[in-house]
Amino acid sequence: MPTFTVFKGHESGAPKKETTTKPDELSGDQVFVRITASGLCGTDMHYRKAHVGLGHEGIGIVEKTGPLCKVLKTGDRVGWGYNHSFCGRCRECLTGNDIYCSERALYGFADLDQGSFGSHAVWREVALYKIPDSMSDEIAAPLQCAGATVFSALQTYNTQSSETVGIMGVGGLGHLAIQFASKFGCRVVVLSGSESKKDEALRLGAHEFVATRGKTELKVSQPIDRLLVTTSFQPNWEQILPILSPRATIYPLSVSEGDFSIPNNLVLINGITIQGSCVASRLTHERMLEFADLHQIKPIVQLFDMTEEGILDAMEKLDQGKVHFRAVLKPVA
Amino acid sequence: MPTFTVFKGHESGAPKKETTTKPDELSGDQVFVRITASGLCGTDMHYRKAHVGLGHEGIGIVEKTGPLCKVLKTGDRVGWGYNHSFCGRCRECLTGNDIYCSERALYGFADLDQGSFGSHAVWREVALYKIPDSMSDEIAAPLQCAGATVFSALQTYNTQSSETVGIMGVGGLGHLAIQFASKFGCRVVVLSGSESKKDEALRLGAHEFVATRGKTELKVSQPIDRLLVTTSFQPNWEQILPILSPRATIYPLSVSEGDFSIPNNLVLINGITIQGSCVASRLTHERMLEFADLHQIKPIVQLFDMTEEGILDAMEKLDQGKVHFRAVLKPVA
Repeated sequence: MPTFTVFKGHESGAPKKETTTKPDELSGDQVFVRITASGLCGTDMHYRKAHVGLGHEGIGIVEKTGPLCKVLKTGDRVGWGYNHSFCGRCRECLTGNDIYCSERALYGFADLDQGSFGSHAVWREVALYKIPDSMSDEIAAPLQCAGATVFSALQTYNTQSSETVGIMGVGGLGHLAIQFASKFGCRVVVLSGSESKKDEALRLGAHEFVATRGKTELKVSQPIDRLLVTTSFQPNWEQILPILSPRATIYPLSVSEGDFSIPNNLVLINGITIQGSCVASRLTHERMLEFADLHQIKPIVQLFDMTEEGILDAMEKLDQGKVHFRAVLKPVA
Repeated sequence: MPTFTVFKGHESGAPKKETTTKPDELSGDQVFVRITASGLCGTDMHYRKAHVGLGHEGIGIVEKTGPLCKVLKTGDRVGWGYNHSFCGRCRECLTGNDIYCSERALYGFADLDQGSFGSHAVWREVALYKIPDSMSDEIAAPLQCAGATVFSALQTYNTQSSETVGIMGVGGLGHLAIQFASKFGCRVVVLSGSESKKDEALRLGAHEFVATRGKTELKVSQPIDRLLVTTSFQPNWEQILPILSPRATIYPLSVSEGDFSIPNNLVLINGITIQGSCVASRLTHERMLEFADLHQIKPIVQLFDMTEEGILDAMEKLDQGKVHFRAVLKPVA
């Protein structure tokens, strides 16, 4: 068990296969997992050139459990996401907002020797989620970060079914947000540059589709109460704010460098909320899996080999905007 | 009754005394008010050179009521603020968020022929508030906008008494925010450029005072859960974000041109809320007056004459940051 394969970022931009070694015995609530699938997230691209174990949308099978494990046993199928640890004692943990735990271990900041790209990994039981039986590995993988992120934005801030939800961007996050918001019962308005993704967005559950490029004025049947921004670029607020309701909430969900900027007075005078939201707390992550299982919400995935070549291919396609809609890596037999 | 004195902005920057004329008979729920005091707000400065009736922190005595008035009668003492009308039917009115009413009439956007600088005004009864007997005109005036704004930011978004509230800036809004937050039972941390306002801030109820100028790292005894930004300039977020708690809320309360900008990834990863908040809805305005009355919360005011000279003097002192802490205009005998 102690030595296994990981894929790390490399200064060349082409991830490299390496090995990492763990202590002979598992301690505490550690769990040794054999990886069966991993999604590729936009955030992985930030670490493409860093010497960091890549991947944070992992699915795997429990091979061994540490002495303090309470729930999981060998053979269980589990998933994990952006955060790998919780203290269980701080204010955020005690209020169910544990994704903001003062001792959290976020991807890219902690556990840099391993990720979900590789053969195995060792994670704490507190940060692993049982996967519903009906869900395949490749369907479950993108839910661990993309799915959790969009579900949490809707769930944590008490979206009501009678509200109108805008989804800006139809990609890895957006195509899941459309499905979740639609199953919440909300009126779903999709905003996208061109008409190219219209049919697919409507099939996924959108009620309206608005192509934004080149338009000075947008038309929607109802003002948008909550806007999930899943694009990697900042919206043109002069174009978007007029179709938001008073007291609308904007969720900038894409991790992107630089500032979030929006006209100050329009935010004040309309009582707009800008809500930062980081993936999902544990209970929300569990509910997301239950909800996706109940409503058969499924990412649309494109499979790649969990090899140096496969990862590079997936990353380049993601970079070019050619992934439809989420790349998932699977080990080669 | 139909013709009375108003003071309007003028291209010279020196407000001019004019008259306005209203119909002979009051209609609907209109109320004819004789003005007894008005606060001077930063927002008035935006209209200083516009041909607009100035002032929106008014106090006066009801002289006559229209046929549909239900509550007020001649002789009542009333106040009014930033908004002059409510439809009573839209979603915002029906949910008690009526400051965002779809038919609101905001200062600077509607009723441009009159304001609270003048001898009289005609307002709708729905936008007038009875003033508690114990409150003098000059104390009540700044509560109609400055007081309502900071109280609403605390009240509307469910500030808990056990939270730590940061107040950035000790001026017209800030010195009232300190008092309200302190009486809410919150730990109050004041952030100000220099130490010059420290003693006064502590006397007003602050528990801690942090001078920010030239500091790379700020120290507070508890992370700030809610930050009321009452300065006219944008905070240095690299300096401020480290002393906010996870899931902290930032309220940018000053009306200022340009964009509100903040580092995108820090907002996401810490679950920060940026909350636009526009003065106060009606019930909140009423509660603010009751709360100020109960706890004897009083603006510190500097009196000026309600004349062309007095208004210009107050405006110039406000422009120079020399008002301590709110200018109030009173009619000359």
